[in-house]
Parts: sequence; structure tokens; C-alpha cells
Amino acid sequence: MTITRDKQSPTATLLDDIAVREVRKLVLDCCRQHGGGHGGSAIGMAPLTVALWKYVMRYNPSSPNWFDRDRFVLSNGHAAILLYVMLHVTGHSTFTMENLKGYGSPKWKGYETSCFAHPEIEFDGVEITTGPLGQGIANSVGMAIASKQLAATYNKPGFPLIRSKVYCTTGDGCLMEGVAIEAMAVAGHLGLDNLIVLYDNNAVTCDGPLEWIVSEDVNAKARAMGWRTIDVFDGDTSVSSIVNAINLAKTYTGKPTLINIRTTIGYNTTKAGTAAAHHGTFSDVDLVSCVGEESRPTHYVIPEVYEYFAQTGEKGASLEQEWNATLQSYGCKYSIEYKELMSRLGGKLEYEDIISDIQVPVNLTAAREINGFVYNQLLKCIPQMFIGGADLWGANKLGSADHSIFGPDNFAGRVARYGIREHAMAAISNGIAAYQPGVFIPSDATFLMFYLYAAPGVRMGALNELQVIHVATHDSLQEGQNGPTHQPVEVDSLYRAMPNFQFIRPSDAEEILGAWSIALREPKKSSLISVARDAQVHRPYNTCRKKAAKGGYVVKENDNAAVTLISCGSELGYAFKAATILDSEGIPTRVVSMPCISVFELQSVEYQVEVLGTAKRIISVEPYVPTVWSRFCTASIGMKSFGYSASGPSNFDRFGIDEKGIVRKVTTYVQSGEEMLKRWMLLE
Amino acid sequence: MTITRDKQSPTATLLDDIAVREVRKLVLDCCRQHGGGHGGSAIGMAPLTVALWKYVMRYNPSSPNWFDRDRFVLSNGHAAILLYVMLHVTGHSTFTMENLKGYGSPKWKGYETSCFAHPEIEFDGVEITTGPLGQGIANSVGMAIASKQLAATYNKPGFPLIRSKVYCTTGDGCLMEGVAIEAMAVAGHLGLDNLIVLYDNNAVTCDGPLEWIVSEDVNAKARAMGWRTIDVFDGDTSVSSIVNAINLAKTYTGKPTLINIRTTIGYNTTKAGTAAAHHGTFSDVDLVSCVGEESRPTHYVIPEVYEYFAQTGEKGASLEQEWNATLQSYGCKYSIEYKELMSRLGGKLEYEDIISDIQVPVNLTAAREINGFVYNQLLKCIPQMFIGGADLWGANKLGSADHSIFGPDNFAGRVARYGIREHAMAAISNGIAAYQPGVFIPSDATFLMFYLYAAPGVRMGALNELQVIHVATHDSLQEGQNGPTHQPVEVDSLYRAMPNFQFIRPSDAEEILGAWSIALREPKKSSLISVARDAQVHRPYNTCRKKAAKGGYVVKENDNAAVTLISCGSELGYAFKAATILDSEGIPTRVVSMPCISVFELQSVEYQVEVLGTAKRIISVEPYVPTVWSRFCTASIGMKSFGYSASGPSNFDRFGIDEKGIVRKVTTYVQSGEEMLKRWMLLE
Repeated sequence: MTITRDKQSPTATLLDDIAVREVRKLVLDCCRQHGGGHGGSAIGMAPLTVALWKYVMRYNPSSPNWFDRDRFVLSNGHAAILLYVMLHVTGHSTFTMENLKGYGSPKWKGYETSCFAHPEIEFDGVEITTGPLGQGIANSVGMAIASKQLAATYNKPGFPLIRSKVYCTTGDGCLMEGVAIEAMAVAGHLGLDNLIVLYDNNAVTCDGPLEWIVSEDVNAKARAMGWRTIDVFDGDTSVSSIVNAINLAKTYTGKPTLINIRTTIGYNTTKAGTAAAHHGTFSDVDLVSCVGEESRPTHYVIPEVYEYFAQTGEKGASLEQEWNATLQSYGCKYSIEYKELMSRLGGKLEYEDIISDIQVPVNLTAAREINGFVYNQLLKCIPQMFIGGADLWGANKLGSADHSIFGPDNFAGRVARYGIREHAMAAISNGIAAYQPGVFIPSDATFLMFYLYAAPGVRMGALNELQVIHVATHDSLQEGQNGPTHQPVEVDSLYRAMPNFQFIRPSDAEEILGAWSIALREPKKSSLISVARDAQVHRPYNTCRKKAAKGGYVVKENDNAAVTLISCGSELGYAFKAATILDSEGIPTRVVSMPCISVFELQSVEYQVEVLGTAKRIISVEPYVPTVWSRFCTASIGMKSFGYSASGPSNFDRFGIDEKGIVRKVTTYVQSGEEMLKRWMLLE
Repeated sequence: MTITRDKQSPTATLLDDIAVREVRKLVLDCCRQHGGGHGGSAIGMAPLTVALWKYVMRYNPSSPNWFDRDRFVLSNGHAAILLYVMLHVTGHSTFTMENLKGYGSPKWKGYETSCFAHPEIEFDGVEITTGPLGQGIANSVGMAIASKQLAATYNKPGFPLIRSKVYCTTGDGCLMEGVAIEAMAVAGHLGLDNLIVLYDNNAVTCDGPLEWIVSEDVNAKARAMGWRTIDVFDGDTSVSSIVNAINLAKTYTGKPTLINIRTTIGYNTTKAGTAAAHHGTFSDVDLVSCVGEESRPTHYVIPEVYEYFAQTGEKGASLEQEWNATLQSYGCKYSIEYKELMSRLGGKLEYEDIISDIQVPVNLTAAREINGFVYNQLLKCIPQMFIGGADLWGANKLGSADHSIFGPDNFAGRVARYGIREHAMAAISNGIAAYQPGVFIPSDATFLMFYLYAAPGVRMGALNELQVIHVATHDSLQEGQNGPTHQPVEVDSLYRAMPNFQFIRPSDAEEILGAWSIALREPKKSSLISVARDAQVHRPYNTCRKKAAKGGYVVKENDNAAVTLISCGSELGYAFKAATILDSEGIPTRVVSMPCISVFELQSVEYQVEVLGTAKRIISVEPYVPTVWSRFCTASIGMKSFGYSASGPSNFDRFGIDEKGIVRKVTTYVQSGEEMLKRWMLLE
């Protein structure tokens, strides 16, 4: 379907053209002041954003976090300046002209800026931080899921409380990234008709013309994945074509829509249509040729344009008023749902009593089974929770979810099937969390190894300060026969180094409860709870959910210890068993369980000192390549290879990480004398 | 296009059916002995592999590494047992019946196996290790590139030395993964008509029916990406349909082909067509219903089937003989090309003199520019080198490559444009390297941050022991305005923990040459050379390519030092400058440059001790979250957040990692007394 310019309303068109021109001028002013930036795409996309902010989106600039606003995601985050300009001209308070002048050069509050090179979530009006290509498309799929789920849960006849749609812009780049294609496949499969992706098809990327790297039919690819597509060929000049296309898309049901809008990067500048416009600078000549005026002051927008957008602002304000009135009547009629929704909107989360009360059945021994049991108890009690898996739901032991599968048949479902698309899965979780922080606590699940596929998405969740709880199983040599391709010997090093992130490896039922407590109590951190496939070969004693929630604690004390073993996860039992053997062999040994290093490091110095103890030799035990452990430890028992394809127990034996191996390595280390304490070492 | 069973050759069909039955029986025997495994897909795909190994592929079982063999990649690596069975029945020596009996339970050499749960490259007949879904499709794209490039480089009229085609099987899973879709887009764009992907469309995945997670038109999606597609609907029963489809695909030029073969997972067992067949066990009843016989001994193949495949083996042997003869005549007529090819086949790599001789022009100061210069010198002199970029070629400063772009217009080109598809890029590099180890040394390039997108591919290269050299730029706070989404504060922790991997951060021209020396000298390791965007703010002195190749060395000595600073990359200059200031302020300070920690750790203990020195305080300086540094250091100067969007210099100032910040932090640390030496700490 192709949409062309609407010839019927010349006045509107004239004002639209003026608005587009002014937006382009301010973009150019900001980029010229910056001496760089990504002006080209922003110029090309100006009609698109004018269409959205003037004629399409439901939003209130005075109340940018109004719950039922439409969401906008700039997946091509490098075009951030366009978003800032739109937020400015529509009256969002953070993005004053003064702040815009700081684009690319911190000036706001002296040393800071609100106009980063890529949009960042901390400012109202920016729904989510974007930049790494493809993430935004997946985020917007998550937001569309969130909106659908809330609507199905809370809307009642006559009370359409949740109607928000999700608009996402993308350039050519995002559409090449696997994460975006995975996410689009999910959106098509789930029939998310509240999602409209606007493709800024300018056919130019960083290095040169798109034809250098792409020769695919993007529309056909999207349709093959269950999307509808609409073409707009005059995207440089016609706001009304774009508006008409979006209005058409809004009439479609059952499928998301991709609107393929042909534009020119750096439209009407001397660099138009070339890679030089992608992140290049623009001259006086460019300014004149693009916006047609020479003597205008810089960073100045004519009043008519503010007024043009002010009308939308007023409309948005009354939309919110109406919505508030609806909410009030809803509260009278549906008090239970109202109370729950308001509690979620208020970010109120009650989990402590639930964690305290959970009794894990003793017949459950495999860590993944215990974790599945705990998760399902939480899911039942905490309405914010939502989870999806990547086709390892059964292996993750997350329990039967048939009654609650999210999809066209049941958008109130709280379990999504993301398919074997780990990267999109994590980025979609971010979108669900970002929809309105606090309203959802999304989780996702796969094997720990495949959280490497998901890593860029996981990172963006932490960077966005979103409470997303990733759930991994099969996290050690217990993974066994699947072999080195499935044994995550180095993935922990990434996640333990990631800022604002909690990597947690609990060992048993008590610690799994502690792990969930750690993850649930931090509304602005992402977490990964990683559990083993099987039961502990030896049971660790003295584990405790409350102590585990401190990150690290003593499970076996010995005041005269020569050795402290620090371990976690499925190896804690081995360490515990080894300590009892070492004791009996004359090497007094204490044991620390440390399910979460980053949380342990937040405890008081006194507590840390007490837990780490006074033994000369402190040794970590974990079947990973030890990196961060050397902060605490004089030596480590761990891996230096990728593992081996054999049964779990035989692997622990092979690599000397069972009690036998630990005892042997520790004994040699103790006998080796003081000299060996000079530097951290890997025990072999 | 749809292909159906060939009714013309009943005898062949009968033998084919028997071969399929025997293959299925042996698969079942192995899985039953194992008590698990992934038998279902293997059973379903038996006709497909019989078609390939009997009628299609050019190979010589007695010489499995014959250079011009067709390559086979099992992207759905969990179906490994089928590959082992095929290698067994076709006479590959490693996969004896005795070894097959060890599937899933190490028996070979007592404690080892050749029949891992996923195929591993160390055994002849397995072209590359697969398992993590999607990788194999991207690997096979790399192999197809390798074959095309070699053919264009060495084939001469009448001497078609390189004709190998690449056959790759995939299940439903791989085709969901972003990495596979990215790679398919690359293959379509490059017109790789020597690549045929055989899709085992059994419509079942781990958790359940495919329709739970996929509702796309796979063929239409592939065609949209520039592929041809062929349907086979009787894939369970008809070898000839599959052969005919492949023969048709081989006649196509200019595009790769996807053959969509409908099969039944666990065909004819009681679990046929269900997820239970995916990795379940099979009973006596299953065995009878699938292969129709009850009283046959286990792990026994009838002689007719060995004979049936032996004919192909003989054909393969004569193909290789012919090829050897052609090669000899080629050697007489094209002696230069012959010599170069033989040298590459022999794995002979001459790089030491080249590295020694390279003079970097003094006007080049930005690390990325120096690296680009060095790379181009190497590319010119070393025929094995091949490189591709992910649309940041210009920003990576890898120089003009217009004359050597690889693609349909010039398959002899040595520079590929992979598009914004980092994950596929790394996995494609692996495929190029695996085509015939030693023949290519592939490189790829993007910003360091985006090597997180590529990480699962990078990992598989290291795990496969392939010499792939990844090239990253923009690796520090110099990345500046692009902000935290582009500042890789934790990515190093992943790569420094990765086994068989060299993460190298050289600081200047001398060290960049050292870095390439480290990467080039290891034929069985993967490396990542990571350089900064800009020039050093302060020049580090005493750098040396030869010393840098030891991983770490002293650049500023001081026998009475109170402090040793260890740094690398763009921060070495700051550390050097800070040391001179600290010296002048009465804190004698020495400086170690450590571009590659893993290589430093391979040096003799004496050397390591000498380099680390005797200063009480050893402090790392790097704008990353410090993890592995605590192995050597008493403290670190580094990051604990994701960074900030501001200019490089202002970021170094903001986070206290310029000379001013270093001096301040070190001074406080020195003044804090002995107590602070008890445990590693992050200086703030």
C-alpha cells in the first residue's frame, strides 16, 4: 500500500511545511554549534516526527509521564538531536533552548548535559536509552507487549484505561541487526497491532550507500514475519502522507505495521543523500539550501511553530484530564483492579513477607526445580511479574504455564514464548520494564551460556536502570554432556564487571530465596539469577536466605582456620565437603558462601572483614575462569579451558573441582609455603 | 519450486531406503545406549544426509582434509549423532563403531570421547564445532566466501582447482537466531551461489510445536534476502527428492539456495512429531516402529550399507587423484600462484620480518590510524589475510579498500562489507578460518563496544582454535560524546577471561606492531586487538614492539619505587605522565605497560616478577571496571559506572583517569598507610 500527499488542506500543509523547516533549522543550529553530531538523519526525518508529535501521538508535554501516553522510541538513537528538538518545540520542560545549546558539549549545570549524543532515559520525554543499533526496535516490542498486557488485565467495558500505542523509528542500520529481526519475528508472531515502526529509509549508512551492504526487500521480509507494510515515497516533504499512512496503520488489527518512508539524509544540504551527511558537519551554504533563509539568528524558533505544537499540548492536557476522570469512575466500579493498578503505578512492591514465608518442598533438590518453584510462588503473589523464555522453558524447569501464555488468544497472559531469540528476549524485557518503571518486573530465561547471546540487551537494561531479572540455569560443569559450547566458563566475568548489575549464583533453596530477595529489592538494578541444572552432590549446611541476601556470609566457621574457601552455586557443597575433609587432615578450613559479589561489596567494611576472616589462604572455588575473585582471594580453584563434553560428576573430577580435587589442590597450596602467597594464583 | 520423489530408479530407491533405515537404526542404538542425546532430529534428517553423502558431496573418507572437498556444516549441532553415524558408514577412520558406542559417555581412550554431544572440530570429518544455534549457518557463509575467494584467486582456465561447495543443515532453531538471519542477509547480498542450506523443517522445538513460537514464512523471508528456495515435501521417505532438489540448486547461479525439507522429528517412533522426540529416550517399541526389525543386534550395520557408501568413497578417492594431477600441471604452468597456494596450504606464515620492517609515518598519531596503516601493510604482504567490517570501516580508519571489495563483481577481493551485522561478522570470520586452517587469517572490525554483539561468535572462534584477529577501535573514554552506550567498561572482562583468546590493548605505533605480532604468531588462538580512537594525550616513552609482544614490560624503571603503575592502551600516556609528576612530588613511581595480560602470564616466573617489581603498591590504570587486574595489583584506578557522554578529555577528568586524577588517587593511597594494602581496592 502506498500513501501520497494529501492535497486537500493547503493551510495545514503550509503550517506543516513551516514546522518541518523550523525543526530542520534548529537541528542544523545544534549540529553546527556542536561541530558534529548526527544531523543528516535528523533532517531527513523531520516530517516524520512533525507528523507524530502534531497529528498522531497522545501525550501531554506538561505531564510527560502520563500513564496512558503513546510511547515513542528512537531506535536510531544517533539521531537524538531530532528528539530533543521535538521535545523542545512541543514544550517539554527539560529540553529548553539553553539545554539544546549544550548538545555534544556539556553546559547544563556546568558539567552536565541533557542533550547527550544518544538519548538517555533519565530525562522525561525519553522513554528509553538507545544507541546500540536494533535495541530500540526490540524495546518497542516490549512496550507493545506491556501495553497489551495491561489493557487485557485492567480495561473494562466503557473503561479503556490503557490505549497507548508504541511508535518506533528506525534507520537502515537497526534493520540489519539480528536483535531487531528477532524482535520483529516475535512481534509478528504475537500479533502486536499496537506497534508501528517508522522506517527512515534514506538508503545511506556510516560508510556509504546502503547498496554496499544491503540488497534485500525489507518490506517483503517484514511481511514474511507477519507484519503489514505501507510505503510512503514523499517522506522528505509531506507530513500529511506520513500522517495518512499512520492513520491507515492504526486501522489494521492483528499485526504490527512497518511504514517504509523514503527520505533523503541531509535533505537539501550539499551533502544530501551521501554518507557525509551521516555524522558530518554542515556549512552556511547547507543551512541556506536546507531551510532557505540566511539571516535568521541561530537557535531561534519562530513563535508560530511553538503555537502550532501548543495546540497539541493542550489537546494532550485534556486527554489526560479525561483519562483521570475515567480512572476515578473506574476506581468506584472496579475497586480491586483499581487498587492493584494504583499500587503498581506507585511502584509499591511487596515481596519480603512472601520470601520469608515460602517453604520449598523437600522433595525438590535440583537447583533449577527449586528456582522454578520459587518463581511460580512469586509470580502468583506479585502482579508486576511477567516472564518469557527462549524455548528452554522445560529445561529451565519453570513449570507449566499453559494457562497463562501471552498472545492473541490471551493478552492477559503473563508468560511469553519468545522463541530461540535470546538477544531480542532481553531487549524486549527492557521495553516491558521501561513502559512505566515499577509497573512490571519482567524476567526472562535461558541457559547461562546463552545469556552471552543476550548480553548487549542485558547491558542496556542495567544501563537504563531497569529492574529486569534474568533467570539462567545450567550454569556450571553440571551442564556436562552438552560440552564446552554450553559451559559458561567466562560469562560470569562479563556480568560481574557490569555496572548496576547483580550477578547471583545461589546454591540451594535458602540461597535461591535470598537471590530473589536481592533482585526484587532493587528497583533500579538489573539482575541475573543463575542456578545449576542438578542437585548439589554434597549438601551445604547453614545456608540462610537472609544472610545470602547480604551477598556473602560464613557457612562454616573456624577461628583458627588456615584456609578460607569461598564458593557459590553448585560448588558450595563440594567446598563444604572438602573443608570437613581438610579439617580432619589437619588443615583447619572455614567456608564462605558468596552468591553475589557486588552485593557483598556493598556491606560495611567490618562485615566484609569478618566474613573474609583471618586465614592466610583464601581460595575461591568455582568452575569458571577466575577474574574478580582475586580481589579477595590469594588463590583460586577454577577453569582455564572451555570445559569438556562429559557427565557433570566426571567433569568436576576431570577439572579437580569436586571435594577430592579441592582437597588435593588446597593441600599442595598449604604445603607450598609462604612464598606462594605473594601473588594470586590458579591452583592446579 | 517443489521437488518430489523420483520414480524412475526403483533399485536405487530401494537401496537408499535401506541405507536410511540403517542410519536411523544406528542413531537409535547410540541414543538408547546413551540414554538421551538428540535422536529425534537425527532420525528425521537421515534421508537428507544419505542424499548428501551418497549422491552429492565430493569427499574422500580416506583423506578427510582433501583441500577441494565439499564442506558440510551441521548448524543444528545437537543432532551430532547423525554426523557421527554418517562419518562411520562412509568410512572415516575416527568414527569407529567402538567410538560411536561412547556417544554421551566417554569411553574412547578410557576417559575421552570423539562422539561429543555436539560435534567438535578436532576430529577429521567435523569441519567446525557447532551447538549454539545459528552459528553454523554463519560459519557456512564464511566457508562459502573462502571458497569463492580462493577460486577467484587461484583458478585458471582449464584448472578449476577450487570448486568446493558448502552444504549446511539447519533446524527450526538456527533460523530464529539473529546471527543466522544476519548471515543469510550477507550471503544473499554477496550472491554466494556455492552455498546450499538444507532446512530440516520438522516444526518442533525443545519446548513444543514450532507454531508456539514461529508464525513466519521462512521461504519468503529467505527470498526477500536474496536467496532462492526449493520445497521438498517428502523428506522423511525420499532420498531422491532431496537429491533432485540439491541438483537443481546447483544449477542456480548468483544466489544461495535454501531447500526447505519437510520432515518428522523422531519419524515413525511413538514420539514422532512431538517435542518429546527432541531429546527424549527411545524404547524398544520405538526401535521396531522406526526401523521395522526386532531381533537385530545393537550397533550393527548390514554390509550392504557399508558397500553402498564405499562406492562414493572410491569415487572420492579418484576425485582427489584427479585433483592432485590437475594441481601438478597447474604447478608447471602457474608456478607463482602454485607456490603461494602450497605455502598457504602448508600453513606457512611469514610475518616477523614484515613487522620488524614496518615504519609508521610520524604524522600518524591517532591509534586507530596507526593501526589502519599497519593492517594495510600486513594485508599487502600476507596473502592469507582477509578482512571485513561492520559499516564502521571509515571510523575504524582501515583505509581505502575500494579496489579490493569482495563481492559478485570481484570475488578475488579481500575486504568484505558485512553491514551492521556484528554477530554474523565474527561467525563468518570463523567459517573463513575453518575452511582450511592456515589458508586464511580472517579479520573483522567494529568499535570495541559492539564486540559484545559479536561475543558468541568470537567465543566460538577461540573454542574452535581458529586464528581469527578481531580489530576494535574506540575502546576507551576517548569514545567520548557517544556516551555510555558506546563506552565498553566491562567488555574487556569477558575477553580477558575467555580461554584460548588474546585480548590486546596496545598504546602506540610500537605496541600496535607488537600486538599484531602476538596475534599472528598463534595459529590456534583467536585475538582481539583493541585501539583507541585518538592520539595519546601524553606520549608514553620507551615503548617497544618486541617487548610489547611479551604481553607486559617496564617502560619506566625506578629501583626504589614506592608505586608501580600498570597500564595499557590510551591510558599508558596518562600513567607515564602521572609517574613523572609523582616522582617530582616524592613518590618514586615506575610504569609497566601491559598490552596483553594473558601473554604476560605465559612468560617465565622470573620475568613476571621482574616486571611487576618490588614496589609495595601496584596500581592498574584503565577506564574499565577492574577485575582481572587484582591478580597483580594492590589497587586499581578504573570505572564503576557506564561512563558519560562528553568529550574524551573531559571524561578522563570526570572519572579521574588523566594524570591529574591518577596523581591525586595515588597520593591519597600512598598516604593512607599500610592498612590499606590488606585487600585490593578501587581508588576513588
